[in-house]
Amino acid sequence: MDTQDTVSREAFPSSSKYYLTTDSGLKIPFRKIKQEKTTVNSTQKDTSNPDIILYDTSGVYTDPKIAIDLSKGLPEVRYWLKEDEELTNLPRLSSDYGNVRLEDASLNHLRFPNLEKPRKTKRESHTQMYYAKQGIITPEMEYIAARENQMMNDYAQHPGKDWGANIRQKITPEFVREEVAKGRAIIPANINHPELEPMIIGRNFLTKVNANIGNSVVTSSIAEEVEKAVWACRWGADTIMDLSTGANIHETREWVIRNCPVPLGTVPIYQALEKVNGDPVKLTWELFKDTLIEQAEQGVDYFTLHAGVLLRYIPLTASRLTGIVSRGGSIMAKWCLAHHQENFIYEHFAELCEILNKYDVSISLGDGLRPGSIADANDKAQFAELETLGELTKMARGHNVQVMIEGPGHVPMQLIKENVDKQLELTHEAPFYTLGPLTTDIAPGYDHITSAIGAALIGWFGTAMLCYVTPKEHLGLPNKEDVKEGLIAYKIAAHAADLAKGFPAAQYRDDALSKARFEFRWEDQFNLSLDPYTAREYHDETLPAEGAKIAHFCSMCGPKFCSMKITQEIRNMAAEKDTDENTIIEKGLEEKADEFNQKGSSIYL
Amino acid sequence: MDTQDTVSREAFPSSSKYYLTTDSGLKIPFRKIKQEKTTVNSTQKDTSNPDIILYDTSGVYTDPKIAIDLSKGLPEVRYWLKEDEELTNLPRLSSDYGNVRLEDASLNHLRFPNLEKPRKTKRESHTQMYYAKQGIITPEMEYIAARENQMMNDYAQHPGKDWGANIRQKITPEFVREEVAKGRAIIPANINHPELEPMIIGRNFLTKVNANIGNSVVTSSIAEEVEKAVWACRWGADTIMDLSTGANIHETREWVIRNCPVPLGTVPIYQALEKVNGDPVKLTWELFKDTLIEQAEQGVDYFTLHAGVLLRYIPLTASRLTGIVSRGGSIMAKWCLAHHQENFIYEHFAELCEILNKYDVSISLGDGLRPGSIADANDKAQFAELETLGELTKMARGHNVQVMIEGPGHVPMQLIKENVDKQLELTHEAPFYTLGPLTTDIAPGYDHITSAIGAALIGWFGTAMLCYVTPKEHLGLPNKEDVKEGLIAYKIAAHAADLAKGFPAAQYRDDALSKARFEFRWEDQFNLSLDPYTAREYHDETLPAEGAKIAHFCSMCGPKFCSMKITQEIRNMAAEKDTDENTIIEKGLEEKADEFNQKGSSIYL
Repeated sequence: MDTQDTVSREAFPSSSKYYLTTDSGLKIPFRKIKQEKTTVNSTQKDTSNPDIILYDTSGVYTDPKIAIDLSKGLPEVRYWLKEDEELTNLPRLSSDYGNVRLEDASLNHLRFPNLEKPRKTKRESHTQMYYAKQGIITPEMEYIAARENQMMNDYAQHPGKDWGANIRQKITPEFVREEVAKGRAIIPANINHPELEPMIIGRNFLTKVNANIGNSVVTSSIAEEVEKAVWACRWGADTIMDLSTGANIHETREWVIRNCPVPLGTVPIYQALEKVNGDPVKLTWELFKDTLIEQAEQGVDYFTLHAGVLLRYIPLTASRLTGIVSRGGSIMAKWCLAHHQENFIYEHFAELCEILNKYDVSISLGDGLRPGSIADANDKAQFAELETLGELTKMARGHNVQVMIEGPGHVPMQLIKENVDKQLELTHEAPFYTLGPLTTDIAPGYDHITSAIGAALIGWFGTAMLCYVTPKEHLGLPNKEDVKEGLIAYKIAAHAADLAKGFPAAQYRDDALSKARFEFRWEDQFNLSLDPYTAREYHDETLPAEGAKIAHFCSMCGPKFCSMKITQEIRNMAAEKDTDENTIIEKGLEEKADEFNQKGSSIYL
Repeated sequence: MDTQDTVSREAFPSSSKYYLTTDSGLKIPFRKIKQEKTTVNSTQKDTSNPDIILYDTSGVYTDPKIAIDLSKGLPEVRYWLKEDEELTNLPRLSSDYGNVRLEDASLNHLRFPNLEKPRKTKRESHTQMYYAKQGIITPEMEYIAARENQMMNDYAQHPGKDWGANIRQKITPEFVREEVAKGRAIIPANINHPELEPMIIGRNFLTKVNANIGNSVVTSSIAEEVEKAVWACRWGADTIMDLSTGANIHETREWVIRNCPVPLGTVPIYQALEKVNGDPVKLTWELFKDTLIEQAEQGVDYFTLHAGVLLRYIPLTASRLTGIVSRGGSIMAKWCLAHHQENFIYEHFAELCEILNKYDVSISLGDGLRPGSIADANDKAQFAELETLGELTKMARGHNVQVMIEGPGHVPMQLIKENVDKQLELTHEAPFYTLGPLTTDIAPGYDHITSAIGAALIGWFGTAMLCYVTPKEHLGLPNKEDVKEGLIAYKIAAHAADLAKGFPAAQYRDDALSKARFEFRWEDQFNLSLDPYTAREYHDETLPAEGAKIAHFCSMCGPKFCSMKITQEIRNMAAEKDTDENTIIEKGLEEKADEFNQKGSSIYL
């Protein structure tokens, strides 16, 4: 458990860690990709190609200069979370369950060996929203502004055609604060997770991606669980959710959080259910509350809470093709029906907010009644619950607790926009966090694709974070390869959404990669891609020789048919022509362009 | 070459061939999937589940009753294409090149052994459009109507909630005729391809998918080429394009067409270029014309022609990030510049139409200036060419030649709709046939996904056929597994588009699969999926035992956490409650629903 070898640490090809230091001394990590020089004919006089600086979720694992010891946890990023007039370190854990586990000597071999005392605020609140509302810019906000803005700065500085043309208003710390104060964005950052590299979820920022990890029936080892988290961050997870339902969840979670550079979310009802041996009917508010405190003091950054599954909504699912498909939703529904009582999370929501408020745990309001099939999309049950989520959002904000809203699920394309429109309206512009949605039910085994289509669309329409779906969805438990496949599909969807939203500088990486492609800089094309290893492997299957990587043609078409090669030749021919010739061609062009514009004007009116 | 074993013939699991016989005696092939009975608690009294009848592109290869002999070719479907007052069988080939190859004894071992005489019309025209304009319903139109409509009939007849609710006007032979007469749909069906199972491409029909096959630098054997075509049809290719550029293209193509149940398209300029040893400058109209006749008499159903790459448009690509990326486009551009002459395909377009008219070869007007990167999307070059394609469409229709229009390429999501809108406007509603588009450039190795997103969107907006992209795009030559991956991604996109368009009965398969999933009919869930083999394999990785396939829980969550299992329990609980209880719940629900509707009305106004 304590060697570097148990987790993935290799830097990506031609990539290194780049730290930007802010005025106030924060060190913001990025990935820097070095490019080769242009060697084929180019109109550029300067043949060098700039370093490409990318947003980086992989943590210090990809920085070879940093020593990693999993048993000590990651170095603290949020060093400002020290005991002071606002924060206190509690002498012991506040949850009964946490103390029982801590005192159980039989668990010593499993327990994270360097536990710190839990932090709790001394004040009325210690959330990012609380400070935002007071007009205070936290270090987290400053960190995030630099992190989100760097790509823009970099893009703007690059020479060449159109570089920087797409730049709009910079993301400033003040802008971050405003968005958090309004509840339009959240910064999931538990004060007990100082290892976290702060990030933001909101539709005016880069679209984020969540990866679910966690063991289930088959028990994984703790080392495997930590590696799952590191692996997911490596491939671009902006947050991870630990959905473990097996043994030793408490101890495993501690190891994961201490070594996790991104926000960690959980669904506390899963662990609560384990505590009552899997019988939803035996759940109680007291048990659930103890679970919330247990996890909050470990450092969980956000909780999925199925507080909107109300007794009166359950009959709305009776005529559905696939009923209730959310695990948390079905657990709460069964409890409600069995007790003839209202959902206890809903009933105790104010008390719950007061707990979360003390640790800055954000809430992800679960869509327990989300549709599980195309047939059930956008039905009464789904939107009834959404209305309740809106009511709860207001209440949480009143307690300065940050909130995002979970969304479906299975939705055909033409019904996706309605989901975003209703969500923004009914839940007062809280960030939307959707699972897919899957745009058809007919492709189990390929639901990372059916859902990447929906995810790209819903991201474009305003969803702030996309929960990934792996190829194993509906069929089995994802392995590491599946996690990677799911993440790549969702990084594609999120990036496509950022492009479509006109997000400043989103096109930076596309342009760099396409330029490399056009100039037959194969190595750069691989290195700039979302998955350099696979890109290289596919290329080498057809043209394995090293020489082929400097070949001025593509392995698909061969030298005779390479359009890019011919285009280069055309440019050369054009350059060789005398001025008269060019004038003639250009004159023809101008005339045609005029004609086109004139026709265009009349055709489109 | 002459045994069954060289091509894939296995029927899909629980699937068999089902032939519908029309009133006039046409036998229309479908795939029938047998389902198991419902065994878990269900509100249905009848526990049987109907056979699911699906559109089937796989040809008779998946019918074990049909003997296949590749050296004889497929049985003729279009038996009506016999010598009569309209058709003649020519005594010899009309193309010089065709005759040279035929007379070359050294090619005997490669040549398809059962060549028929080429058919040519005796009349002014013999195209589907010609007959459509005359008000004549051809057997092809009748065949297509039955093929496109069957799923709807089937869907309408199924019992149960909402089955059949989505049905609108039937697709009749007369409707097919009207759409073809207007040029809004095409039936690519060369009179020299009697083995073809007729299909239609138009935005008021099911969205179609094309797969590109063909050898390149590395020579594949003829048997391999035939298997590629069969394999592509098996996985859902509605048409295939043979983009071969290697040796013996002529002979290989003959073998492929004789054994191909779907329309085959080619890019004749590729073969023409082979004939001049790869130097575009040496191309001539005479050589190209001979190639068109050669391929038309073999039975190629549609030609991609880069007739819109005009001399005056070429300078428009000069400032692009990635220039000209279409192979055909770059070949024509180089020819134009080198000769200071207008594109010879454009110049001889009327003569070309007269040739195609005699064989009913459809035209796919190539987008030689399509964007090859996000940066170049929707630029002047692209839309200038599109305007010319509109002009050529009119001309072709005047010669009764059917036309579709090719589209990009690389386009970010927010610019996709403009492509369809402009295309429909400028090219007079000709069917649109797009490559992807890729919605980002940053994921080589995963461009089947970047482009499935764009394909689903553009299909929804009105594209009639989607040209697939495989994971190897930009990197290398696709192998069989890549072809399958590309096709699955595109069947997903096409189906998502059909759902979004509200295409009648598109939801048929989704509903059947989701019902199977909800009822834990694992075998049916696998069998109804686009790829039954992968679905089963993924399931078995987690829960391999045969018993797990009748398990009433999902392999992801295990028995305790299965939401679908809990939902079943909730339904049972609800059923057990006395009437009063239910009334109370329902009353609460109704009140809430009223409240919701009232608020809704005011919120959204």
